[in-house]
Amino acid sequence: MKYRVGICQFKPELLDVRANLDKMEQLLYNKKADLIVLPELANSGYLFNSSDEVYSIAENAFRGITSQLFLNMAKQNNTSYVVGLAEKDEDKIFNSAILVNPDQSIFVYRKTHLFLEEKLWFTPGNTGFNIFPAKKDVKLGIMICFDWIFPESARTLSLKGAQIIAHPANLVLPWCQQAMITRSLENRVFTLTCNRTGKDINVDKQMSFTGMSQILDPEGKIMARLDQEEEKVIIAEIETDNALDKNITPANDLFKDRRSEFYQK
Amino acid sequence: MKYRVGICQFKPELLDVRANLDKMEQLLYNKKADLIVLPELANSGYLFNSSDEVYSIAENAFRGITSQLFLNMAKQNNTSYVVGLAEKDEDKIFNSAILVNPDQSIFVYRKTHLFLEEKLWFTPGNTGFNIFPAKKDVKLGIMICFDWIFPESARTLSLKGAQIIAHPANLVLPWCQQAMITRSLENRVFTLTCNRTGKDINVDKQMSFTGMSQILDPEGKIMARLDQEEEKVIIAEIETDNALDKNITPANDLFKDRRSEFYQK
Repeated sequence: MKYRVGICQFKPELLDVRANLDKMEQLLYNKKADLIVLPELANSGYLFNSSDEVYSIAENAFRGITSQLFLNMAKQNNTSYVVGLAEKDEDKIFNSAILVNPDQSIFVYRKTHLFLEEKLWFTPGNTGFNIFPAKKDVKLGIMICFDWIFPESARTLSLKGAQIIAHPANLVLPWCQQAMITRSLENRVFTLTCNRTGKDINVDKQMSFTGMSQILDPEGKIMARLDQEEEKVIIAEIETDNALDKNITPANDLFKDRRSEFYQK
Repeated sequence: MKYRVGICQFKPELLDVRANLDKMEQLLYNKKADLIVLPELANSGYLFNSSDEVYSIAENAFRGITSQLFLNMAKQNNTSYVVGLAEKDEDKIFNSAILVNPDQSIFVYRKTHLFLEEKLWFTPGNTGFNIFPAKKDVKLGIMICFDWIFPESARTLSLKGAQIIAHPANLVLPWCQQAMITRSLENRVFTLTCNRTGKDINVDKQMSFTGMSQILDPEGKIMARLDQEEEKVIIAEIETDNALDKNITPANDLFKDRRSEFYQK
């Protein structure tokens, strides 16, 4: 099926949820696509200094102001969105991403592998890697940022049937964009890595993010890539069926050729 | 421990075992290293046209002329070698690689994931991914060529404790050398990919190989890389202990951070 997928790279304002929602709404205005992915922690920025700060911006995944905005946009634009946010669930805070669909359904992924100080602020995700139905029932997997370095993340999603992996990110290390080429190729799956740009500064700490958000096809070919700084939506048309064909040669189906009896989990 | 590792890239002559052993002996003459890796099917070349051809060049892993040459060189040069060969075991032929040590021990790995027409000539490997003691008891894992595209190959070897992965190859697809950067990085392990060069021609078939053999450190940094055509040994000094440290940040040990309860095997 022909399917229009996009990524919306931008610089969130630290701890200013209202400003971030406004910016996303502006950037997404009139962008026609079936699915658009936004960065990790797009509602809040990244570089926290205390649990109080994180609590102050965390939201319910289904009834918060971020989900409310995306529910409205999903209906209005007939688009599925994946957006990262700090999620409050009773007394726990997760680094999550929600899939928000035109039919007003919402699905939640909670980041499995936490990076650096995230371990101070967030509870490790308890959802595991699941496949969700995006618009037109396309099989969507979600992983967040540092999940990329564990090959099991994209692998598990792909073995469960993902045609597209949405990958909201706040990347600081230099390797991910290149490694995602391997992730797409080894699983023969589309990957949409949506990174943020700019710098977070919080008292005496600062952190720079690497942009270069990208859309990769199942051969790892770069269909679209933004630069390090652009705040922009970019869209590519994909053929989702290409992710169903796991043959890398006429004699090699990468999934049927697996010999899991020899693999250590 | 300081450890000198090398790769010996060359072009084998198809079906001419004697010529290939002579060339390897020449190239390895006086090369001082603790471990040197040679290509896949280094004794025979790659592009067979019949099972008879493969039978004609296949050898016993422990008592063939290839193992005999390497046993002698291992003793004389005080070097461990990993070399690919077509292995005959009773009525079966495997695409194998042997580790030959100065103490005259030999260990065998049989390729797990067969590529293209290899499925016509070889029995899929039945050894699985094991760790062998190379010189000075360094923990060595072996995988062969197309094994690279299955992340489980390098992962399993690394989880079992490999400090170095020896990776004899006859590469024809364009992706492996770059993907191995991800393999080294995600497992924080040294990888020695030794590819062949040149072209095999057999009646109406031909196949070109991509060279660019490389030595990578546990961050995926290229310590040494040959070009597409060179027939040459290249050596780098590594610190094997670097592969024991799985920390990619002070808070992220890539092995301790794994959450295998969420991984599908």
